[in-house]
Amino acid sequence: MIKVGVNGYGTIGKRVADAVVAQPDMELVGVAKTRPNFEAEAAVRKGYPLYAAIPERSDAFREGGIDLAGEVEDMVMASDVVVDTTPSGIGAENRELYRQYDTPALFQGGEGADVADVSFNARANYDAAEDAEFVRVVSCNTTGISRVIAPLEEHFGVEKARVTLIRRGGDPGDSSRGPINDILPDPITIPSHHGPDVNSIFPELNIDTLGVKVPATLMHLHSFNVTLESEPTAEEVKDVLSDESRLFLVPGTAGIDGTGKLKEFAMDTGRPRGDLWENCIWEESVSVEDDDLYLFQSIHQESDVIPENVDAIRAVLGRETQEDSMELTDQRLGVGLESVFDGMRKRLTPYQ
Amino acid sequence: MIKVGVNGYGTIGKRVADAVVAQPDMELVGVAKTRPNFEAEAAVRKGYPLYAAIPERSDAFREGGIDLAGEVEDMVMASDVVVDTTPSGIGAENRELYRQYDTPALFQGGEGADVADVSFNARANYDAAEDAEFVRVVSCNTTGISRVIAPLEEHFGVEKARVTLIRRGGDPGDSSRGPINDILPDPITIPSHHGPDVNSIFPELNIDTLGVKVPATLMHLHSFNVTLESEPTAEEVKDVLSDESRLFLVPGTAGIDGTGKLKEFAMDTGRPRGDLWENCIWEESVSVEDDDLYLFQSIHQESDVIPENVDAIRAVLGRETQEDSMELTDQRLGVGLESVFDGMRKRLTPYQ
Repeated sequence: MIKVGVNGYGTIGKRVADAVVAQPDMELVGVAKTRPNFEAEAAVRKGYPLYAAIPERSDAFREGGIDLAGEVEDMVMASDVVVDTTPSGIGAENRELYRQYDTPALFQGGEGADVADVSFNARANYDAAEDAEFVRVVSCNTTGISRVIAPLEEHFGVEKARVTLIRRGGDPGDSSRGPINDILPDPITIPSHHGPDVNSIFPELNIDTLGVKVPATLMHLHSFNVTLESEPTAEEVKDVLSDESRLFLVPGTAGIDGTGKLKEFAMDTGRPRGDLWENCIWEESVSVEDDDLYLFQSIHQESDVIPENVDAIRAVLGRETQEDSMELTDQRLGVGLESVFDGMRKRLTPYQ
Repeated sequence: MIKVGVNGYGTIGKRVADAVVAQPDMELVGVAKTRPNFEAEAAVRKGYPLYAAIPERSDAFREGGIDLAGEVEDMVMASDVVVDTTPSGIGAENRELYRQYDTPALFQGGEGADVADVSFNARANYDAAEDAEFVRVVSCNTTGISRVIAPLEEHFGVEKARVTLIRRGGDPGDSSRGPINDILPDPITIPSHHGPDVNSIFPELNIDTLGVKVPATLMHLHSFNVTLESEPTAEEVKDVLSDESRLFLVPGTAGIDGTGKLKEFAMDTGRPRGDLWENCIWEESVSVEDDDLYLFQSIHQESDVIPENVDAIRAVLGRETQEDSMELTDQRLGVGLESVFDGMRKRLTPYQ
């Protein structure tokens, strides 16, 4: 059993903890948290050992009636791998702690690429993580782009990618973030950081990205253009994409017109927290004009990196092959929405 | 003096009426309206002769205490040109009325291209409107794209344009429109109608457009990519764009980060209704990677077509050259924001 500690228990940390518990080859050592808030309370209710991320604040937990299993150092010591899900920038400060106990650590995409030896996406470069001291699981958007680029590159060749990322302003719980009723080029300069970040996974890829921020919280939307080296039909592209377990082709018959209905659908299917671990690609948007491929995809910023973190735990320890790990992760989490619509695809006529 | 009637007095109509009144060579015959609402009241206060667009509803105006100058037919009869600003689809129904009085008419971009003999953008094809029976001034977004394509085509050659249009959900007064907290591919299929519509102005242009709808009301935002036939520097592109009176290069020194501050700026400068007749192009976003040009621009959906309508009035009657008409229109409306920032450009160091 791989012993996993999760440092940080916010949006990503709580999901990683649940995902680790669901794996047959992993054991959750516990989670470390800075404050005894509602999320700490939830961790206790789930029976997750709770560690104080900041030892000086241990008293606050006791005063809040929450029993601690120890301090974050104890957790790191007991873990084979630590998943660091602390806020951007804190991860880099934690490196010394992990190094001290010779515990490999995974960081999240909010950290700079230089926090780790390797930036990671399970589909694109699983094997690169083996034996690394530190691995960075790239951000939700970079993950979403990488999952599409990898199969396109393999099947059709990519000459150039151009992606406009229409980003949600904040997560649903981020009550202090904006914008309200505004559309912001963000950053105004081009490229946004996403292009260079994708290059941390695909060093040779020619990619330009543009970032925009809008008043929405549910998911990001990517307006995707890839100039291919060959000229497949849209059907051929769809076939390739639908073979990927972490790409969900939203069928035209489903009546899903945006991120709101995608999340509603995820909740209807009983997904925990309404999570969408898959890229949601609108099937009807997949178009090829000459050698230019276009598509729209939505990315659930809170959850698409979760299966990637699970795979990275195995990858850094050299356990399982890429294929086996991804399959095991997907099966245990329930990744893969294509099957939900198999019946619908057969029963209904597309509405156009 | 060119006698101009304006049929419809909503978002576009009221602005066209004001713009016509500001021209030295035009006289406003009046405006036609269907209902005696707050906008009708405002027309009366401005002294604009008001005509009943639907004769059967004349009584409603009288009951509302509003004097009518007559019925819409009277206005058409008295006009040299009618600008039809009625809701999408109604314009096509009005064609017979204009034909009956042999009055050339301008339609708006909400109508299909087949409503008119020619689709019009002053910068791109002014002369094409001369002697046409019906002219269609293209939509706000098509206008915004055409104004950029025309100079790029002339100076650098355009191999292909790819534009993602991040569209406001509705105008500020459209209280029944959405989305709220959602991001919608709209349409899901590619291309959106904008690409073919731009082709009504540039028949040979290779252009793909993607439409998205977001919870905002102030302006549209275009994420613009043009693969050029030559490889100018970003500075050379900026020089070309800044020579265009209807393109406003938003300087980095201005601290304008999105559509909200653009509108705030427009109101601070005393613009009527806070209108932005110019494409607002973020100067810092203008980037060239190999032969790919990128930029962000915001388009004020309520007002960028107003100077175009004014020019189309002259163009359809064969009055003035393109250059003279555009200059006169711009001067009388106050189009051109570059000068506002001349001082700022000199005084301040760009913040990056």
